[in-house]
This record gives sequence, structure tokens and C-alpha cells, in this order.
Amino acid sequence: MTSTDTDPELDRLYRDFAAEHLNPLWTQLGDLMPMTPAPKAVPHVWKWSTLYPLAQRAGDLVPVGRGGERRAIALANPGLGGVPYASPTLWAAIQYLGPKETAPEHRHAQNAFRFVVEGEGVWTVVDGDPVAMRRGDFLLTPGWHFHGHHNETDRPMAWIDGLDIPFVHYTDTGFFEFGSEGVTDEATPDVSRSERLWAHPGLRPLVGLGARVNSPIACYRWEHTDAALREQLALEDEGYAATTEPGHAAIRYTNPTTGGDVMPTIRAEFHRLRGGARTRPRRDVGSSVFQVFDGAATFRLDGREHAVGVGDLVVAPSWVEWSIETDSGADLFVFSDAPIVERLHFDRTHFTEGA
Amino acid sequence: MTSTDTDPELDRLYRDFAAEHLNPLWTQLGDLMPMTPAPKAVPHVWKWSTLYPLAQRAGDLVPVGRGGERRAIALANPGLGGVPYASPTLWAAIQYLGPKETAPEHRHAQNAFRFVVEGEGVWTVVDGDPVAMRRGDFLLTPGWHFHGHHNETDRPMAWIDGLDIPFVHYTDTGFFEFGSEGVTDEATPDVSRSERLWAHPGLRPLVGLGARVNSPIACYRWEHTDAALREQLALEDEGYAATTEPGHAAIRYTNPTTGGDVMPTIRAEFHRLRGGARTRPRRDVGSSVFQVFDGAATFRLDGREHAVGVGDLVVAPSWVEWSIETDSGADLFVFSDAPIVERLHFDRTHFTEGA
Amino acid sequence: MTSTDTDPELDRLYRDFAAEHLNPLWTQLGDLMPMTPAPKAVPHVWKWSTLYPLAQRAGDLVPVGRGGERRAIALANPGLGGVPYASPTLWAAIQYLGPKETAPEHRHAQNAFRFVVEGEGVWTVVDGDPVAMRRGDFLLTPGWHFHGHHNETDRPMAWIDGLDIPFVHYTDTGFFEFGSEGVTDEATPDVSRSERLWAHPGLRPLVGLGARVNSPIACYRWEHTDAALREQLALEDEGYAATTEPGHAAIRYTNPTTGGDVMPTIRAEFHRLRGGARTRPRRDVGSSVFQVFDGAATFRLDGREHAVGVGDLVVAPSWVEWSIETDSGADLFVFSDAPIVERLHFDRTHFTEGA
Amino acid sequence: MTSTDTDPELDRLYRDFAAEHLNPLWTQLGDLMPMTPAPKAVPHVWKWSTLYPLAQRAGDLVPVGRGGERRAIALANPGLGGVPYASPTLWAAIQYLGPKETAPEHRHAQNAFRFVVEGEGVWTVVDGDPVAMRRGDFLLTPGWHFHGHHNETDRPMAWIDGLDIPFVHYTDTGFFEFGSEGVTDEATPDVSRSERLWAHPGLRPLVGLGARVNSPIACYRWEHTDAALREQLALEDEGYAATTEPGHAAIRYTNPTTGGDVMPTIRAEFHRLRGGARTRPRRDVGSSVFQVFDGAATFRLDGREHAVGVGDLVVAPSWVEWSIETDSGADLFVFSDAPIVERLHFDRTHFTEGA
Repeated sequence: MTSTDTDPELDRLYRDFAAEHLNPLWTQLGDLMPMTPAPKAVPHVWKWSTLYPLAQRAGDLVPVGRGGERRAIALANPGLGGVPYASPTLWAAIQYLGPKETAPEHRHAQNAFRFVVEGEGVWTVVDGDPVAMRRGDFLLTPGWHFHGHHNETDRPMAWIDGLDIPFVHYTDTGFFEFGSEGVTDEATPDVSRSERLWAHPGLRPLVGLGARVNSPIACYRWEHTDAALREQLALEDEGYAATTEPGHAAIRYTNPTTGGDVMPTIRAEFHRLRGGARTRPRRDVGSSVFQVFDGAATFRLDGREHAVGVGDLVVAPSWVEWSIETDSGADLFVFSDAPIVERLHFDRTHFTEGA
Repeated sequence: MTSTDTDPELDRLYRDFAAEHLNPLWTQLGDLMPMTPAPKAVPHVWKWSTLYPLAQRAGDLVPVGRGGERRAIALANPGLGGVPYASPTLWAAIQYLGPKETAPEHRHAQNAFRFVVEGEGVWTVVDGDPVAMRRGDFLLTPGWHFHGHHNETDRPMAWIDGLDIPFVHYTDTGFFEFGSEGVTDEATPDVSRSERLWAHPGLRPLVGLGARVNSPIACYRWEHTDAALREQLALEDEGYAATTEPGHAAIRYTNPTTGGDVMPTIRAEFHRLRGGARTRPRRDVGSSVFQVFDGAATFRLDGREHAVGVGDLVVAPSWVEWSIETDSGADLFVFSDAPIVERLHFDRTHFTEGA
Repeated sequence: MTSTDTDPELDRLYRDFAAEHLNPLWTQLGDLMPMTPAPKAVPHVWKWSTLYPLAQRAGDLVPVGRGGERRAIALANPGLGGVPYASPTLWAAIQYLGPKETAPEHRHAQNAFRFVVEGEGVWTVVDGDPVAMRRGDFLLTPGWHFHGHHNETDRPMAWIDGLDIPFVHYTDTGFFEFGSEGVTDEATPDVSRSERLWAHPGLRPLVGLGARVNSPIACYRWEHTDAALREQLALEDEGYAATTEPGHAAIRYTNPTTGGDVMPTIRAEFHRLRGGARTRPRRDVGSSVFQVFDGAATFRLDGREHAVGVGDLVVAPSWVEWSIETDSGADLFVFSDAPIVERLHFDRTHFTEGA
Repeated sequence: MTSTDTDPELDRLYRDFAAEHLNPLWTQLGDLMPMTPAPKAVPHVWKWSTLYPLAQRAGDLVPVGRGGERRAIALANPGLGGVPYASPTLWAAIQYLGPKETAPEHRHAQNAFRFVVEGEGVWTVVDGDPVAMRRGDFLLTPGWHFHGHHNETDRPMAWIDGLDIPFVHYTDTGFFEFGSEGVTDEATPDVSRSERLWAHPGLRPLVGLGARVNSPIACYRWEHTDAALREQLALEDEGYAATTEPGHAAIRYTNPTTGGDVMPTIRAEFHRLRGGARTRPRRDVGSSVFQVFDGAATFRLDGREHAVGVGDLVVAPSWVEWSIETDSGADLFVFSDAPIVERLHFDRTHFTEGA
């Protein structure tokens, strides 16, 4: 049932298919429908020590402003032929804003977040609400919310952006609109109005009841994340079930109006491994991007080891076997396309036997 | 179509109905199906200054222990003929625990909470997790969780209990089981393990994912409630929409795994009115119990005014017109059967025109 | 911890409680919170051969019209002191409409259905849509839909009504409004417009997308119910899993916009037992009312047997052990308050061991 | 903020980006994040009169069997560079099975359906349940269900297959497993067991309660679809709101356990336009594939007209303005990726003003 080059009838048939914009299944079934996910994207590591200096050079050479919009430099998965995609679904970039610079406001259907591995002094203004960015913070810009950034200091600042740009581009679901050239509120409060309304544990304001598509919390502060992880490990020490696996604490950032993921397409979590801990090797449907926030670790991705340190980014494509171990302890931020996979019921996880 | 006493045929028919355990609709339609809710329960106020001394006397005279289980004295709505029900669905009681006393462990299908208007020094142990009780705290004991209380101090302590006992009794849905005579963990930590795992804003542990029937947060601490209300009023002062009405801040206690109510049958909220504020007169389907936590206020219930101060309890039955005003400012805890009403789609609210 | 009659201090305390509308828990815990549901309602059987002649006599003596609204005679559970409640939550009545009579239109928050054990010739008009009533049909009148009935024939017709009147009365959640004196559409079509739009298996119209609180199907016709049950038994004969238990076919009437129950408070099902079949003895939280539609059966309720035939009604209160057996085969309609119990998470079922 | 070829520093920076697998946003923002969806896929029509003879030739030249699995010839959107994708998310193919041929069993994570525009005599066996295929039928093979096809007759049969192959391939979410070489049940019943259990309007069996990811109805028969559409137009004639727009009846195939779409990634509907009807011009996020089942129509796609007749297939990519008109009346089957778009909250529709 495969094409034999020597059959002229069949050759003619295939040429006629092509002429009529048709394409047979039987000659390409294995590629189209492999036994298990066979991503073109490959596991890869980007070092912060490479990224940051390149971002700095871009800061010197490329102005930020209307049109280009953002000084963001995206991870281009080596398996994907040069497109600026960390995986088929996920965009991950380092964004760099020089002293006193402003990135103009715009909005788009794509869902976005920022995670800050170092520095401070930039405010993201989301639908008019200024949100301070500080080390360890996780900030949301859900789809169709206006947002701009401005650096109030004399020092540059860099952070990572995560978006669903590749997915939205592929599925033709995106919209984009320019907003103000500057940010619409230049105030520089310590915490955003969104946090003042929403970031109280288990409490919600009586304004705006009901479930929301996106989390209304603009920023998940490091203090809370750190405290939650510390408590999990302390509870483990006291003998209670609190960690994900021995020595492995983890929290998921959630939408407090649903208990689910912060945005419809992106999951974000923070993991803390004690020194000596190792995660159980597993494969998941869907792709993930990790950033080391603190400490150092070794990622094992489909059998190959990658040593990583603070700021380094790691991509694990779908169904790659992955595990992490650390001698000295490690703090890891991670985001993934799990909400897409789960909402469409393609989720599977396989733990490696005997590992 | 109404019974006329003079028709012997009809009299005989009605007697025959009764003999066969039958009952006609047409003679009692108006009572059975009134135009709007016509509760037998009435609006009523219980003064803390009355409740507390009676609880003290009970503390002197009635030991707490297995069998009676709790030294709890329930509000008996004057319209309900002496049963210990604040409303047809809600139980509200003052519970009193003397120095060093212990209320034994048990569990029941009924959902329960405690709210602390004064004092401290008691720990509630919920499924083995000791939860400190302090002023302003709101504590959960959802259905079928073992729980006991013990007072570690030399002073008595009192608080209010809220449950769905009347509803469960009426609908024949309750189960009860005795547990340990003492509490199963006598530790006296400042915060419970449940809070250490769950009370981080917008974060959830990766253990125990998925939606839960009840909130996993055992205690909602006063510090968080107070801060959330303070921020709403500050945001209002700064010109942002954050309060429920002018001068009226409010939070709802929620289940962080769903964003909904803390338990399937009971809603709980905390309201803060600035001095000079007044809530808009309204009627709601379902009944509520308020407790003044701080300050003083006047409740207007179906046109009649009730002045209340700290610790006083107010019951508003279904569809009673209610509003609250305060000269000096007031903090109010409130719980209701709104989840029952809403899940069964009987909810309606009517705001009084021109009020 | 129980009252001792000889302690004058305690007597005084209890008198003072009563004077202040307070009521202690410890003297009545066992009644208020029994180990398992302890319904006052009792299992009971009403014979159609008793019901129908009484309804006929009412037809002769009591006119139907505005005010009394319906010639409905309710089952009054012998355990409930004479109120017209089949169980604490459920109303079940025989309704009787004489030749050419009309029951006027009204609407109420209470959810209602009709089930037809015999006869035809009456149309129920639901929000202006005339719905023919025929043997075996199950008709809905969800909350706040106007409805009236008119008999087009020269013969009387009787059927059973099921509602949540007791529940709504107890929880003070009801509203009522009079409508037209006659029915608003006197047409007598074979099928309702609602069925023409909605009663196609697995298909929905593109008008009115989204989930609805109530099923939009006004009538579930006997032909479909019968066919579904017949197929289950045929599949069982062919060796496939299709029945609930051996010889026991069953369908649930559902809301096609959600797959859930037809109305928020009432579940309805139809069961068919082959000759010789017996259901497994079980207890459920919540109460049920059965009507024999065809054949004959023996109900065993808390160990006592009740022989029933066509038209007979059986009430099984909460947590009563029940099972059904039949020599000759039986068709059974049943409704219950299961949606209340399940939505509030009080549901439990216990199968009798070794039965 | 765009690259100027003459700046050697910038050229070097871009080369260094590329060397490090990085890619700047600012040079390609417009392509990556257009103002509105800018699909590479184009509107296109495939004529049945072309498709069927090519399928016949394939029937003569290419055997069907293990390895190639299916004699399916896919629509290759002319904008997508030759890949066998009707749109970025959807696969649409004509499948052809000769007399007495069998396509072996397999299963895959991809969701699939068949729609039959002509012919009969093939049975699809889904997880062991033989499902007859006849003109107008819509058949499901949800993800991870084994399925094979066998032709019982002496005549060939062709139909269309719809799947989410492109989406699954792009997102790396697919799994595939070979099954039996022949079909596991060679019976040829008129209706499947699945239909006998599930295809009763508003009724569900008591086996397998709860919501299911996919519809349990294996086949939606033409008789029901046709009747539902006929009734909508008849109701419109009688003056009742039943159609989508004047002269435009439509049904959606649904999962009876949820009321939602039949499968997590694919929506399917059937539309009937009276002679003289015209749909309102609109744009939708997401792509659709139409097949004319009966009659003839003119599709207007981004302003260009396409005349189509029975069996012709039309692809409308995301955000293309589309409308349909017909002089003589037309019956249209359509499927789309709307569940993906809606579950991830990218859905938008824009109706053309004044059209």
C-alpha cells in the first residue's frame, strides 16, 4: 500500500491528486499519526550568561517603541527551523528595558505573563493598573488587556515573557490593537490595585462575583510563593504529606475565581527541590519551559544531562522523558501548555518504571 | 372551590381523604404556595450581653463531654415554636468552653463553622489538625470531618457556631459518628497545617489537585479579612471601584479550589461599613444571620429598627426587606443559606425602588 | 450533661434560655443529629383503586377554577402529621379534570411535572405551548413557567402531579402568580412545539444555545421511554451490559442541554423489571415516590412487604432499605429529591451486604 | 526599530541571535501577531465530481490494509504548501472502500467522524460495535476508540472523514495503536448497540452515569436530522421562533451527557436553507469545512462566489467573511474546530454591518 516508483498509473494518480489539491493518507500515515508524540521541537538549554549580554547589546542598538513594540528576544527551538518558538505552542523570550525606557501600550488575544529572575524598577501597567516587577514575581497580562512597561530607574532590567504566540498563530485566533504611546498611569505603587482587591488568601471582593476566564490577580509576589514552598518542606520535615515527592515542594499559580489555571492556555508553577532531591522520570503530553530561579540542577531530558544554573532556560517538548536532580537545592519556575492539552482531553502522563 | 361547612357530601369527602392519608390542594393553596415567601421565622435580635452571661451560667452548671458533646446554646427563632433554629435552614449558637475543658471529637454530615467575636486560647482539632481560634477568625468544619475543641488556658472562651442542622434535619440527610474522647492532637500551633498548605493567595499545592466539595482552608484569619476590607475602602478613597456600595466594603470567604462558597450549604461574608454608610434596602430569597464584630449599627428589618452592638446577633428570614446603617462605622460577620438557594436556582433579589 | 429535674439552678437556667429564645444543644442532640437519617415520614402505599374514586367524587363536588386552581389531592405521609407532603421534600397528588373543564393558568417558583398512568384528552399549555397528555407520558412544568390544563373530551382524566412544594415551603423560596383564566392556546396538536424543536436524539437547535436550568423538552413520550427500555433488555439478552442489574432496565429523564436532571430539585426515572427480577436492597439519602405503571410488584420497605399494582403509589423516605421484586414483570415510574441531595453533597447509598 | 541593512553592529547582533537559537520579536511582529487572523489557508472548493473518480482510481490501484490503513484522500488547502490539511486544525478526506473490502482496526488519540453523502453497505466497527453507514448519517469515532470498516456489498462506497489530525500533529498530542486485521464483529445490524442504548430523546440509561468526554452515540441517523430541520421550518411557517435566521434551519450534533459538542475538538452541524434564503455575512474565529448534502448553493467567501452542488466541499479559514445563498434550497453538513476555539476562549464572531 505504499507508492512504488515504477507504477506509471500510480504516479499519474499521485500527480492528479496534487493537481487537485489532494493528498493521500497511506503514503504518510506514520509521519502524520506516529505511535507516540514525535515532536520536531527538541530539548534545549539557553544559558542566562548568553541571553543577558545579547539582550544588553540589543538595548544599545535597537530602540524600543511603536511598531516593534517590545525589545523581546525569543527562544527559537533548534528543531523548529528558526521560528521564534520555544515549542509549537509556547513563546519564551527575554525582554530588556533600558533606564527610563517605556514600551508602549497594546493589547492582543494572546495570553502573556512575565517572570522576574533578577532586578526591579519596572512597572507593567495592565488596563491602567501599575504593577511593580520584582525578583521572583509572576505577573499576568491575559488576552485582550492593554499593557505597557516603563522603567523608572537608571538601571536596565530584564525578565522573561511567556506567551501562547505560536499556538495562536498556528490556529489563526489572534487579534492585536495598539494603545497609548506611553503608559496610561505612571504611578509606581508597591502593589497593584488588582492585588489589593484580590490577593487575600481564600477571600474575594463582592464586586465582580462569578467565574472569570483569567485570574484577576495581576501579580503573584515572591514572598507568598516562597512562604508556600517553605511551609511544604517544613511540613514534610514534621512528617505530614505536603510535598509532591520527597524533597520536592511545588505550587501552582491559580485563578482564584475558579481554582484552575491562571489563563486558558498557560499553566505556571514554581518548584523547590532540596539538596539531594530527584524528581521521578516521566513523560507528559504537552511542552514545558523551565527557568532556574535559584541554585543549580541537572535536567535529564530523553537520557541526556544538562547542568543548569540561575537564569538558564530549559525546554522539554511533548512526551520527552524528563527528570531533575540537584545536589545543592534548586528553585525552578516552569510554564506549559497543559491547559490546552487538558481542556481538549489529550493529557497523558507516563512514569518510567523502576526509575 | 372552598369547603362550605354546610355541605355534608363535601364534609364526608374530606373525612374520607383524611382517612386515606390524602389532603386536597384547593383548601390551602394560599398557605402552601404564597405569592412571595411567607416565612414563619421572624426577624429577631439576640444581645451578646444576654447570651454571654447565660453561657457562663451553663459553664458553671453543665459539664461538657460525651453524649451532650458541646456546650452550645442555640438561637431559637421566636416564629418557629421553640425549636433551636435561627431560621428553617440555619443553626446559630454560642458555644462556651471553660478553662482547660475539652469537647470530645465527633463528625457529622452537617457542615459547621465557628466565628470568634472575642477571646482566644481554644484550639479546634479538625481531622487531626489543631487550629487556633482567635478574635476575628472564621473556622471551618465541613461535613464528615472529625473535630473536637480544647481550651488550653485558665480563662473561658465563647464563640458562635453556624451549621445547617435544621436543613439537614428537615431533609433527613444527616449522619453522625462519635470519635475520640479527647482531641487527637494536643499541639497548640499558631497556625494550622491546613493554612500552611493552602492559605497563600492564588497559590495551591500540587498535592490534591482538582475541585473539592469544601474549602481546604481550616481557618480564615482576621489579619487577612481586615486587610482586604481596609484596601477596598482605601481604593474607594482613591477613586476606584472596589466596594459593594459607597462606604460598604465586603469580602466573601471562598473555597480556593473552586472560587465558590466554602461549603455546599453555607455562605459566609464579612462586611465593613464606614461611619455614615447605609446599605440599599433589599429582599433576598434565603435567610441570613449577622453578628456585629465591631462598632454599632441599626438594622432595619421589614420597616422596624434594631440597634445593635458588638456580639449581637440578627436573623433576617427569607424575603424580609433589610438594610443597615451606622453612624460610627460597623464591622459585620454574616452567614446564610445562599448556596442552597442558588444551587437549586431559587435565588432572587429585589432592591427597594427609590430607597 | 443531661437535665436533672431536681437541680433548681439548672431548671432556672433552662427557663431563662426559653425566655430569651435560646435552646441548648446538649438536651436534644440525639434527635437533632441522629446517627443515620431518622425520618418522621414513613414508608406507605396509596392504592389507585382508592385514589381514583375519591378524585371522581371531588370532581362531582368541587369545581375547578381561580383560587383553588387545581383539583389535586395530595398524598399525606402518615408520619408527617397530616400535612399534604409525600415526604419532607416532595409533593405527589392525583389531579382530576372533568369533561371540558379547564384549570386556569398560573406560574410558581415550584418545579412541577405530570405523569400519566392512564387516559388522554387533556392538553397542558406551558408558556403558550399546548402539550398533549397521553398514557406513559412524562410532562414538565419547570419553575416560573405559566401553565394551565384543559380537557377537550367528554371523559374525565386523571394523572399524578409531582412538585417540590414541601421543600420550597420549608425553605421559604416560593413565588406564585396568577395568569389567564383560560388557557392561552386552545390548539390540540399531537406534539408540542417544544418537542418539535428539542426531542430529537443528540440534536439541538441552534436557537438558544448554552446550558439551561431546566429541560426544554415539555413532554417525554411513552414511545421513546418504552423503546429505550425494550432495547436495554434486548441487549441484555444478547449478552451486552445495558441494564442496571440483571433483568432491570432503567432510564433517567434528562435535560438535553446539560445531560443532568430535568429540573434542579426533582429527578425522574422509569424502571422496567422482567418477571422474576429483584432489585438489590439498598438505602439512599433522600426520598422517592414510585408509581406502578404496568404489571405488579412487591416492594420491601424496611423489611415489610407491600404488594402493588397498576396506579399504586409508594413512598420510600430517606435511608429506608428498599427493594422491589416481581413475578410477572413490572413497569415503574419514580421521582425523587436526588438533585437536592447531590447538589448539596449529602448523597450516600448503602447496599445491603449479602442480599 | 527595524533592521537596517547598513548597520554592521546590528547585522552581527542578528547573526549572534541566530547562532544562539534566538529570534527577535521586533523584526516580525506584524507577521507573528497580526491585527486580525491572517490565515495562510485559503477559501477553496473541491468538487465531488473530481474527488469521486480519483477515489475510484485509487480503489483500482491501491489496496487497503495494514500499514496504509485507510484509502483516504485528504483535501490539501492550497495555501498550506501541500500538506494534507483542509485548515491548520482540520483534516477532511474522501474515504473509499471497494466491494467486500475491509480497513483494519486501529485506534488513535485523534478524534474522527464520518459523514455519508451517498451510498450504503459499509459498517464501521467502533470498540466492537458494528455501525451501519447510510446516506445522511453522521458517525463518531472519538479519540482512542478502536475502529475498522468493512464493505458487505458488491458495490464500492465512499464518504468523508473529518479529524483533528493537523491540530494533534502540530501540538504533539497524538498516540496510535494497531488493532485487529479484520473487524472484531462482522454483524451487520441496522442500528448499533450504542444507538439502542443512547439515541432516545432526552433519556439516558442508568448504566454509565456522569458526563463523558465524547458523545456515546455512535451514529446520528439522517431520519432524525431531517425531521428536526423539517420541524424548524414548519414552526417558522407557523410563526414561531425556531430557525437560526429566516429560511435557515440548523441543528448541532451534541453529546447527550453534557449538551455540548460531540468531541472535544470538533463541532458538527447540519443546516438547511430554503430556496431564496441567504445567511447573514459573518466572520468567525476558527475554520470550517462544509459539504453540500442536497440541492445547490453559492458560497461567498471574502467576496468571491463559488457555486456548489451535491458532494462538493468548501473550506472557510478563520476570520474569512462567509455567507451562503441558494435559489433552489440546500442541505449542508459542516464541521469546525469551534470547540478548540471556545474552550480556550479565543472565540469571536463579527457580523457584517448592513449586509
